[in-house]
Amino acid sequence: MSFFSFELDPALAADPVFDLHRQGKMTMSATVPLASRDDLSLAYTPGVARVCEAIAEDESLYPDYTWTANTVAVVTDGSAVLGLGNIGPKAAMPVMEGKSVLFKQFGGVDSIPICLDTQDVEGIIATVKAMAPSFGGINLEDISAPRCFEIEQRLDAELDIPVFHDDQHGTAVVTLAALRNAAKLLGRQFADLRVVISGAGAAGVAITKTLIAAGVQGANMIVCDSRGIIHADRPNLGPVKEQLAATTNISGRTGGIAEALIGADVLVGVSGGAIEESALAGMAPGAIIFALANPTPEVHPTVAHKYASVVATGRSDFPNQINNVLAFPGIFRGALDVRATTITDRMKVAAADAIAAIVSDDLRPEAIVPSPLDPRVAPAVAAAVAAAAIEDGVARRSAVPAPAAAVVPA
Amino acid sequence: MSFFSFELDPALAADPVFDLHRQGKMTMSATVPLASRDDLSLAYTPGVARVCEAIAEDESLYPDYTWTANTVAVVTDGSAVLGLGNIGPKAAMPVMEGKSVLFKQFGGVDSIPICLDTQDVEGIIATVKAMAPSFGGINLEDISAPRCFEIEQRLDAELDIPVFHDDQHGTAVVTLAALRNAAKLLGRQFADLRVVISGAGAAGVAITKTLIAAGVQGANMIVCDSRGIIHADRPNLGPVKEQLAATTNISGRTGGIAEALIGADVLVGVSGGAIEESALAGMAPGAIIFALANPTPEVHPTVAHKYASVVATGRSDFPNQINNVLAFPGIFRGALDVRATTITDRMKVAAADAIAAIVSDDLRPEAIVPSPLDPRVAPAVAAAVAAAAIEDGVARRSAVPAPAAAVVPA
Repeated sequence: MSFFSFELDPALAADPVFDLHRQGKMTMSATVPLASRDDLSLAYTPGVARVCEAIAEDESLYPDYTWTANTVAVVTDGSAVLGLGNIGPKAAMPVMEGKSVLFKQFGGVDSIPICLDTQDVEGIIATVKAMAPSFGGINLEDISAPRCFEIEQRLDAELDIPVFHDDQHGTAVVTLAALRNAAKLLGRQFADLRVVISGAGAAGVAITKTLIAAGVQGANMIVCDSRGIIHADRPNLGPVKEQLAATTNISGRTGGIAEALIGADVLVGVSGGAIEESALAGMAPGAIIFALANPTPEVHPTVAHKYASVVATGRSDFPNQINNVLAFPGIFRGALDVRATTITDRMKVAAADAIAAIVSDDLRPEAIVPSPLDPRVAPAVAAAVAAAAIEDGVARRSAVPAPAAAVVPA
Repeated sequence: MSFFSFELDPALAADPVFDLHRQGKMTMSATVPLASRDDLSLAYTPGVARVCEAIAEDESLYPDYTWTANTVAVVTDGSAVLGLGNIGPKAAMPVMEGKSVLFKQFGGVDSIPICLDTQDVEGIIATVKAMAPSFGGINLEDISAPRCFEIEQRLDAELDIPVFHDDQHGTAVVTLAALRNAAKLLGRQFADLRVVISGAGAAGVAITKTLIAAGVQGANMIVCDSRGIIHADRPNLGPVKEQLAATTNISGRTGGIAEALIGADVLVGVSGGAIEESALAGMAPGAIIFALANPTPEVHPTVAHKYASVVATGRSDFPNQINNVLAFPGIFRGALDVRATTITDRMKVAAADAIAAIVSDDLRPEAIVPSPLDPRVAPAVAAAVAAAAIEDGVARRSAVPAPAAAVVPA
């Protein structure tokens, strides 16, 4: 047990980032009065007992009379935090608080950061299942691949609330939105795009699946990892990459990223590894390059523009920022509004199309996605996701109640 | 998967308790601005990465730069909720939300309700341990005896944050406060009081231990459960009651509550079972009766007053309400302020003495404890608990920083 001073390090005290983070970035508060004995007798004993009894008799009342229907847990084990790697649960907390406040700011979703003191797959699954009644949804965050795939799949199958690993699907949804608009801008048929994904982690795998769900031909896609092109004859792929090999690269191309890019229309970089300029030279004319690694894109935008007509990055200081905040607040808003039991491919594609539609009237090469601060995005995404959930039969409400008081709780 | 309408039951819609509980009783919000790109770059990427790196390098920075140092989980398995019994985690949520908002209202503590989908001792312990990095303390709530004893003991031993089962210690602290003042009012020596506890569940066990820690002679105490007086020769006691038998009732009295009460100065009822008036007749003159069962006291106050000079209940519609809200907000406020690793007996006794002191200048038989709404209580309890933590060597801060900004977060 180490004792420490609460005098602030003078270096940290003078730093605006640390100033902002002091005591954290969020708080909770009551939405009911608690000033009088009558208030307490309604909100706590004895009044509360009647609400408890009503829920015990009819569990369907639960979301109506608790805060849980609007509450999402942001869960991490700290194993793959931003570009920092496996820094553990405590060092991950500032990111999870940040995610939680973005959920509220953009989606009106109450969100609680839960940083787990285990990196064991079974331990994570058991913990999330045990605490799941407390929440209306689970946002998994910054959990390393390939563990993230099994954790998400099993939790989604075993829980009746949405489980969504944002590093996979948030990135995939916004990438799809950007690619829809880039193709439209360039007059390309989306289904004919020849796409190369550089990176087979959480984002790369999900982008591949989501693009296929949205109409790209798997046969025309190639996925590369740090060892080069993934193909069916490569040994020791593991189950996730085996599935990629079975659904992409049907011609069985081999080699590295340069071989993959020959004739490609689209490069999506989600690897963190630099890509040599020479590898880009083989791309088809008028290409599309999304270099999404942060803080250092796989290809600098200036270089990318030599070979591509449309370029996007993950950074806010270049045009076309592919930022998950365009997706996750609206996706959960929509899923919670109709009390969806899961988040389907159709809901993800609907979210992407809603994001794309926001800027479709004024498409320009430097404006294929909305600004992360655009207030039109989350409501549009929420409405599209809710409609898709109903269409897919995973909604427990047939419509969003009007007025949509839940969108921004008091 | 049942579909249900979101049209409200007309009967519920006209009910003020259900009106109040609609959409729950709490919300979360950001404490930092999120309106501009610059705001996002400080609170989220890229700025947040520097805070993560600082915590990864020096974990002692964690409480300074996250919300966790002011945040307590209210954890239940729904096995012993109010007087309703084992109603499960979802039906328990309205109580846990109520507890959370009381934490904030009276202690300035951010609090999150966590209702667990397991009633297995090992499952509960594993789940709470796994999520513990997310919180500065754990308030266990409405977990049935005897499981609650092992769960609390093991979590407290294995975690470096306070773990506090309020049904045990909150009740014990307020009971001790009331008994201190009742003894003072009647001119009795506290250490000489002959005390009978009716009920050997979570509250009865903790009250017994806390009164002994505060100076009552265990030899002069008798504990009764539904089978009568607990004594060393009774078979099949189980470990918790065996310990009670070893530390109380040294004369080895046997029988029921009537035998226990012969010559007793104090009756504390925490059983829920009615006590016949005839049993009270054997108490010593000028007795003290605390009949704390809710909503029906073990002895009606009118009857109790025939035999006792001071009477208290758990109800707000009689004088001297023994209400845990006098204790838990201030206890956690004080423990969090000095970043205590546990809550010791000394901290509990200090909390009780602070509660008692609030009304000690104007002691009357109908005012031995403050009102649950008295705003002086929580700050006084917090200061006493923080000082006791430092004295006991369980504080990680040697003083509460001034100004005590943490007391009521912005």
